[in-house]
Amino acid sequence: MQIAVLLFDRFTSLDAVGPYELLARVPGAETVFVAHEPGPVRNDQGSLALVADRALTEVTAPDIVLVPGGPGAREAMRDETVLSWLRAADATSTWTTSVCTGSLVLAGAGLLEGRRATSHWLALEELVPLGAEPTGERVVFDGKYVTAAGVSSGIDMALHLLGRIGGDELAQTVQLLTEYDPQPPYDAGSPDKAPARIVDRWRRGAERVLSQES
Amino acid sequence: MQIAVLLFDRFTSLDAVGPYELLARVPGAETVFVAHEPGPVRNDQGSLALVADRALTEVTAPDIVLVPGGPGAREAMRDETVLSWLRAADATSTWTTSVCTGSLVLAGAGLLEGRRATSHWLALEELVPLGAEPTGERVVFDGKYVTAAGVSSGIDMALHLLGRIGGDELAQTVQLLTEYDPQPPYDAGSPDKAPARIVDRWRRGAERVLSQES
Repeated sequence: MQIAVLLFDRFTSLDAVGPYELLARVPGAETVFVAHEPGPVRNDQGSLALVADRALTEVTAPDIVLVPGGPGAREAMRDETVLSWLRAADATSTWTTSVCTGSLVLAGAGLLEGRRATSHWLALEELVPLGAEPTGERVVFDGKYVTAAGVSSGIDMALHLLGRIGGDELAQTVQLLTEYDPQPPYDAGSPDKAPARIVDRWRRGAERVLSQES
Repeated sequence: MQIAVLLFDRFTSLDAVGPYELLARVPGAETVFVAHEPGPVRNDQGSLALVADRALTEVTAPDIVLVPGGPGAREAMRDETVLSWLRAADATSTWTTSVCTGSLVLAGAGLLEGRRATSHWLALEELVPLGAEPTGERVVFDGKYVTAAGVSSGIDMALHLLGRIGGDELAQTVQLLTEYDPQPPYDAGSPDKAPARIVDRWRRGAERVLSQES
């Protein structure tokens, strides 16, 4: 089994590394970070670089495709080399997955047409013009397409996938070894739960950003 | 504010990237990955490399020190260059922190002498001969020393730290933007909760590994 994690400039690091950490523990799986060219790829903060060990052209038939999000997803979703690679990889994949605004890249490749999907809460509505049906769920399965909400949700997605791939005991083993027994000291992880003034401030900010971009 | 994340061969990627993703969002913070030499550092799986942008000698007075764990922690805790760097950085740090078996490295540098601390559940007892007092808690504060349990617990640690550094609203904002609203499909994230046969199997395996090492 080969798991390919796509990297592009200004990706969000936890979107990629969260599910990677869990999925890489599938016995016998080969996990590979891929990008236009092999070499370091910088994240959205600029202070982290993950190495892509392979070029897109070297990874043609992964079993699982994972697309992270991040500010750079807005360029990736218009990058024909990336989109062609995704369409080709998807043609033979068992699972095609994304975290956060990675779903915009999948949708940009036409892979979420008519499908239920999710994304970062600030980007959900952007799925609509791309043909997908946004949901407020944290992890969405629609056939072999699996999308997760913002950033940290990729860890939950990976546990769901581990259960489908190897059964409950594999998923539970990986959860135990990564000690994923969340105990956040605040309960502000979704727009329904966070203080309204924080949510409003970011919604207004997102609207400003979107209107400047369009 | 400067946040230094230590890298060493065979670190566990989520130990470093989980808290990094949250802490890097502190307004005005500079986050830097450091290692013996600048360049890519491979993780425990071998399939991920994070770039250290600075050598240890270039980062002498970080405000926050973060030490991840991983199989390589057992070499790092005996590496005099790493231990000397940690002692020097700790002399002026505001917070000295670790995730998973990163606490063994802090303890190896003598920084947890007489302090309450935690580690990966399979490594907790190894803190005792190093002078620390292990606890079963997920995140342990003892003065400026903050240790987190296995792998994913670094995310919870980072939220606690954000609250201390910038107040509840900063922590809640980062939790919302990283959509950290955990919904794991299993409840097996600690040895108290996972099926006993899985816990026993890994405890026996860990004992075997430890007796071979000693």
